[in-house]
Amino acid sequence: MEIKLHAPLDMHLHLREGAMLQTVAPLSARDFAAAVVMPNLVPPVTSLERLLAYRQAVLDAAAPHQFAPLMTLFFQPYPEEILRAAQPHIIGVKLYPDGVTTNSAGGVNDLAAVEPTLAILERLGIPLLVHGESHGFVLDRESEFLPVYAHWAQRFPKLTIVMEHITTAEALTLLERYSNLAATVTLHHLLLTLDDVAGGLLCPHLFCKPIAKRPEDRAALLEAALAARPRLMFGSDSAPHPIDRKETAGCAAGVFTAPVILPILAELFARHNALDRLQAFVSDNARAVYGFTPPNKLVTLRQAPWQVPARYGEVVPFYAGETLAWQVDG
Amino acid sequence: MEIKLHAPLDMHLHLREGAMLQTVAPLSARDFAAAVVMPNLVPPVTSLERLLAYRQAVLDAAAPHQFAPLMTLFFQPYPEEILRAAQPHIIGVKLYPDGVTTNSAGGVNDLAAVEPTLAILERLGIPLLVHGESHGFVLDRESEFLPVYAHWAQRFPKLTIVMEHITTAEALTLLERYSNLAATVTLHHLLLTLDDVAGGLLCPHLFCKPIAKRPEDRAALLEAALAARPRLMFGSDSAPHPIDRKETAGCAAGVFTAPVILPILAELFARHNALDRLQAFVSDNARAVYGFTPPNKLVTLRQAPWQVPARYGEVVPFYAGETLAWQVDG
Repeated sequence: MEIKLHAPLDMHLHLREGAMLQTVAPLSARDFAAAVVMPNLVPPVTSLERLLAYRQAVLDAAAPHQFAPLMTLFFQPYPEEILRAAQPHIIGVKLYPDGVTTNSAGGVNDLAAVEPTLAILERLGIPLLVHGESHGFVLDRESEFLPVYAHWAQRFPKLTIVMEHITTAEALTLLERYSNLAATVTLHHLLLTLDDVAGGLLCPHLFCKPIAKRPEDRAALLEAALAARPRLMFGSDSAPHPIDRKETAGCAAGVFTAPVILPILAELFARHNALDRLQAFVSDNARAVYGFTPPNKLVTLRQAPWQVPARYGEVVPFYAGETLAWQVDG
Repeated sequence: MEIKLHAPLDMHLHLREGAMLQTVAPLSARDFAAAVVMPNLVPPVTSLERLLAYRQAVLDAAAPHQFAPLMTLFFQPYPEEILRAAQPHIIGVKLYPDGVTTNSAGGVNDLAAVEPTLAILERLGIPLLVHGESHGFVLDRESEFLPVYAHWAQRFPKLTIVMEHITTAEALTLLERYSNLAATVTLHHLLLTLDDVAGGLLCPHLFCKPIAKRPEDRAALLEAALAARPRLMFGSDSAPHPIDRKETAGCAAGVFTAPVILPILAELFARHNALDRLQAFVSDNARAVYGFTPPNKLVTLRQAPWQVPARYGEVVPFYAGETLAWQVDG
C-alpha cells in the first residue's frame, strides 16, 4: 500500500546551526515541502540580517532536496519599520516567555508590555507564534497560560495567534472558542504521556517541553489530529540534542522526531482508519491558517518495514532501533 | 550550635549487596542506630537462611559502627510456620505489587489473594510494610492504592500496616483515619516536587518511585513531618544506583540520600523552628509504631559547614557538591 502527500508541512521545527544543522536539515528536507524554522539559536534570530543568513544556511544544508524554510523572528518589542522590512522574509514572530525552554533566555518577562508590538503584528498581518507556558508547576504551565491566549485573541481579533505544541485537552477547548487562534501539535504528544517519560525507567530521550501530560490529554490530542480538526496543524517540535546533553545529570528538553515523522503518522492514521485525513493534518490545515501556498512537492509513503537507526550523528532519534511499518519513498 | 539525637532510625533503607553494600552501609551505620533493611535484592529475600546471611553481610559492612539492621522478608504467601520461624529475626514483611519499582518483579499480582497471609501476620503481630502503588498513571498510583490500605486497615484491625514512602496529602488524610496505619516519609519527598525532577533540565539523580508530586503534596508532607505527627516515621528510601544506571537512556529509580540525611533534616527543622520535634520524627514515632527499643546510641549534630562529595564510589549522592550547614560529629 502507498499514499501520496501533497506538500507535507512541519509547522514547528528546530534545525540548530553548524554541524547539527548539517545532520538534521536533510532529514526534514527529504520528507517535507516546507517547515517553520524556530529562532531560538544562541544568540536568537532578532535581526533581518541574521535571519537571512540563517535561511541561507538552512537552504545550503537542505540541498539538493526541494525544501522551503519558513523563517521566524524571535519576539522582541520591535519597531514597526523592522517588522515591515522583515515581513516578506518571515512567516511569523515567535514569542517565548523568558526561560521556559531551550535557549529562551532573553524572551519576554512582562506579558502586558508586549501588547504594542502585538498591535503592530495585527495591523501588518504577521502571525504570532507562542510557546505558551507559565513559570508555574511543570504540569500546570500550559493551563496557566491559556487565559493569556484568550486575552490576546479577544484584544487582537485580526491577529493570528498560534498556540505552539499544545499538550492538553483544555488547549483544544480554547482553540474552538476563538477563530483567530490556531495550534500545532507534535508527533510525540500524540503518542506519549508522562508515563512514557517517567512511569518506568526515566527516559531522557522522551523528555521535552512542554512535558507530556496525562492519558486523557493525549487521547484528546490524538482524536483531534485524527479528525484533522481545522486550525490544528502538525508541527513536530523536533529538537535535536547531542547524546551527551541527554544522557547526563541535567538533561536538555527535546525529542528528535524529524526522521520518523511521516512513517509514524502514516502508521498511526492507518491504525485508526484515518489515512484520508492525514493530508489535511500535515498540510491543508496549515495552508488555511497561514494563507500561503507551499512548494509543489509530492511525497510518497509506502507500507514497507525499515529499522530506525540508533543514532543520526550524535543524536538519538525517537523510536531508535525500532522497526516502522511505513517509509518515505526517496 | 549542636543537638543530640537518641537512636535516630531510618525506617526504610536500601543497602544492596556486594560492593555497593560495602560503599553505602557504613554511611547509614555512622549516622543511625538502626534501619529497616529492604528485601528487594536479586533474588529477593524470601527465606530465613538468605535473610540471616544478608543480615550478617550488613553487620560486617557496617562495622565498626554501632548499627542494628532491622530485617524484612519479601512478601509471599508464606505458610504460618515460616513466619513463626522468621519472627524473631524480622521487623516486618514488605509487600511489593509486581513490577512497580526496582527489583519488584516477583511481587504480588492479586491483592485479594494475599489476605490469608495478612491474617497470619495479624495473628502473629508481624507488621506489614507496603509499597503502595497501583499500575496506573504515574501521578495517580499512590492515590489509586489508598483504598487498598483502607480495606486492609478495616479488615485486619490488629495488623500494623506501614504505608511506605508516602508522597501525597491524600495519604496523610488516610493516615489520620485508621489507628493501625502508619507511614514513612523520605527526606527527598519533603524537599522535592516534580518540578525539581522535570521542571527545568531533567534530573535523573532526583528520579525515584514513587515520583515526587505537586507543591501542595510536598507542603502537606513537610508540615506533618515538622509537627512529628504520630505514626509518621522517617524512612529515607535511600536507594543507590551506580552512575551508569542513572545517567543513561533508561534511568533507574532511586535517590541516594544516606550520607546527607541528618544534616539536611537538622537544617530543615531548624529553619522552621522545629528542632525540638526532630527526635520524635527520626526516632520516637517509630519506636511507638513498632513497639521496639532501639540500641542506645547518641548522635551529635553540629552546625558547621561541610561539602557533600561529588560521589561515593560509583554513586552520586543527593546534594552532591553542595555545602550543608550541619554535620554529624563522627
